[in-house]
Amino acid sequence: MGIVVQKFGGSSVADAECIKRVAKRVGETFEEGHKVVIVVSAMGETTDYLLDLAGKITDNPPKRELDMLLATGEQQSIALLSMALDKLGYSAVSLTGQQAGIFTDHVHAKSKILWINCERLEEELTQNHIVIVAGFQGVTERNEITTLGRGGSDTSAVALAAALKADVCEIFTDVDGVYTADPRIVPDARKLETISYDEMLELASLGALVLQPRSVEVAKQFGVKIHVRSSFNHNSGTIVQEVREMKQQMEKEIVVSGVASDLNVVKFTIFDIPDVPGTASKLFSALADDMINVDMIIQSQQRDDINDISFTVTRDDREKTKEVIAKTKDIIGGRNYSYENNVAKVSVVGAGMITNPGVAAKMFETLAENDINIEMISTSEIKVSCIIKAEYAQKAVAALHSAFELGE
Amino acid sequence: MGIVVQKFGGSSVADAECIKRVAKRVGETFEEGHKVVIVVSAMGETTDYLLDLAGKITDNPPKRELDMLLATGEQQSIALLSMALDKLGYSAVSLTGQQAGIFTDHVHAKSKILWINCERLEEELTQNHIVIVAGFQGVTERNEITTLGRGGSDTSAVALAAALKADVCEIFTDVDGVYTADPRIVPDARKLETISYDEMLELASLGALVLQPRSVEVAKQFGVKIHVRSSFNHNSGTIVQEVREMKQQMEKEIVVSGVASDLNVVKFTIFDIPDVPGTASKLFSALADDMINVDMIIQSQQRDDINDISFTVTRDDREKTKEVIAKTKDIIGGRNYSYENNVAKVSVVGAGMITNPGVAAKMFETLAENDINIEMISTSEIKVSCIIKAEYAQKAVAALHSAFELGE
Repeated sequence: MGIVVQKFGGSSVADAECIKRVAKRVGETFEEGHKVVIVVSAMGETTDYLLDLAGKITDNPPKRELDMLLATGEQQSIALLSMALDKLGYSAVSLTGQQAGIFTDHVHAKSKILWINCERLEEELTQNHIVIVAGFQGVTERNEITTLGRGGSDTSAVALAAALKADVCEIFTDVDGVYTADPRIVPDARKLETISYDEMLELASLGALVLQPRSVEVAKQFGVKIHVRSSFNHNSGTIVQEVREMKQQMEKEIVVSGVASDLNVVKFTIFDIPDVPGTASKLFSALADDMINVDMIIQSQQRDDINDISFTVTRDDREKTKEVIAKTKDIIGGRNYSYENNVAKVSVVGAGMITNPGVAAKMFETLAENDINIEMISTSEIKVSCIIKAEYAQKAVAALHSAFELGE
Repeated sequence: MGIVVQKFGGSSVADAECIKRVAKRVGETFEEGHKVVIVVSAMGETTDYLLDLAGKITDNPPKRELDMLLATGEQQSIALLSMALDKLGYSAVSLTGQQAGIFTDHVHAKSKILWINCERLEEELTQNHIVIVAGFQGVTERNEITTLGRGGSDTSAVALAAALKADVCEIFTDVDGVYTADPRIVPDARKLETISYDEMLELASLGALVLQPRSVEVAKQFGVKIHVRSSFNHNSGTIVQEVREMKQQMEKEIVVSGVASDLNVVKFTIFDIPDVPGTASKLFSALADDMINVDMIIQSQQRDDINDISFTVTRDDREKTKEVIAKTKDIIGGRNYSYENNVAKVSVVGAGMITNPGVAAKMFETLAENDINIEMISTSEIKVSCIIKAEYAQKAVAALHSAFELGE
């Protein structure tokens, strides 16, 4: 049998009892005859505890030292899980990111995996050991400890699955899989059996954070099959894979896969920008230089040679965006700006959209029927998103879910 | 100026405030123009917390995984201390045992340092960085994380001082230095300005645990000057160094340097062992095979061809000793045995003893005058030890301290 990579998040290893439960589950997979590689995050609150400790010492810790500190969280959970497996009679070995050969770039606190040297991993697997790898961390060529940034453990798992050519990368979470909409908002939301990488990427970046977007990107690049499933039961969850493989499994073509909303949005509007070529590009270059991810952009020509420009950023980037606007004001010649926190992005996502026109029209119609005003629109090949007032977000999701007949 | 190695124990880095205080002190040493290498232990209760966590999962964790777990304690404190130094404006860099090039043997949980590859350390020192090294830990040639066992941070510090040819290895503790006796027992106990490695070794292993004996052995082997001093003040403490260097500094020759007592003793007696050559050696070989350190041994011939053998071990080893005696009973042919917890070892230590006979006699006389019965005696070139009833330990120490005129 082949290699199975399983990833358990912080809440799955929150305390000794949780760790014992995970060990039991891992043992079951091993008993089925698979070679097993486990990736774990830090125990529940550990990372926050460590950040709090650092905060008592300095409000601006060097990122290298923060990585040194935070990497201990995963090192603790891999050791404890290995002990729990030993207690159950299995031969397990825990490996830090460094020991597992996960090489990253030098950007501390949000480094990217460059390559994985699988020598040690393969050696342990050959000896039929269950291998437990610390997620979220790696090492540079200079032997410096790095971390991959928030949600990095998903990326560690998928990258390991890619490097080891694993049959599947199972991501265990506290939900059953990926749903057509957030079940807390839409009671008849349906679990998807399969979803394509691109759809998952759109949904992930839209607040349905079952999977870290970076991990889906890596999975897409290397064709890693991801299985998102619950750590509380043995039901099969949602398979994330290439769309053409999906089609073969599906009885009918599904146009829209899901509806999502995202409240982590701030809408900026800059007024009265002179309509000179390159003006907008100067603003967005300056934002990009400061690593601010701009999502939607609308330029509205109001009168001759003068424009308003609206765009959205995440709430984290709000203050930095204000600084950039202040810095570039004389370049872009803008007179004034405003921003609005009280907005939401509602999106319908579906790989089938490409070949099925009319999804956008149906979305606008549905929102209009529900008296929801659309402030901004953006479309891609597999997604239509609208910015609306935040208070209508839940109502919009429920209405769209019903209009596209996504329920059970 | 040369290199100074400073070691701070767990109580010195118990919380954020303590870590800031240590950073200030380290900064002062750096300002004096020294190249500075700092060794720290895990924060106060961290190791116990981690052991407790492991205990909730299994009562017999694999030692490799325990090392993986415990090594995180020091990794956290080095990162936090480095942050605190950065906050004060110093360029500091923290290094794990692996990064610092501390190579050990493969014996997990009590590994020994084999050699130190100083490349990275020297590179950081050349760049005028304050280098902070995780004590208590190292790495094997196979890239496995190991720990040095209890008190290993002292050993890390001394070994680093030896490898880097440091001017001095300063061990910061909660006492002012090494005293002629425990000041809690003997109020007029005097702080020693200097003490030889051998005397320190005898005192260390006698319960005056200011310094870990292993670290003193390494210091002796490589001629590392140790300065035991308080982390609460700037007084000079006690210098541990070669006896010949001491002599030059001393105005008069001191016969006895200190008096110590040790309650961590269990006395075993095995009765009626046939007096056949090699019988005793079989017992002590079996004890050695199980890593039990036997301290004092007395063989008393009671009647023809039959002996009683008494010996002492530490309390930790009591149960294991009982097991070994049970296993070897048919080999050694012993009929029965007893053990006594309620004993103490009282010792006088002094390098000057070698050339001054009569120390043992004076010790026995003093104990006799105080109606304290001696159960066992052992002597070395610089030490005389007696096993007495535990309840007389304090009285004995005070009487001997006074008899040898060690007070202020």
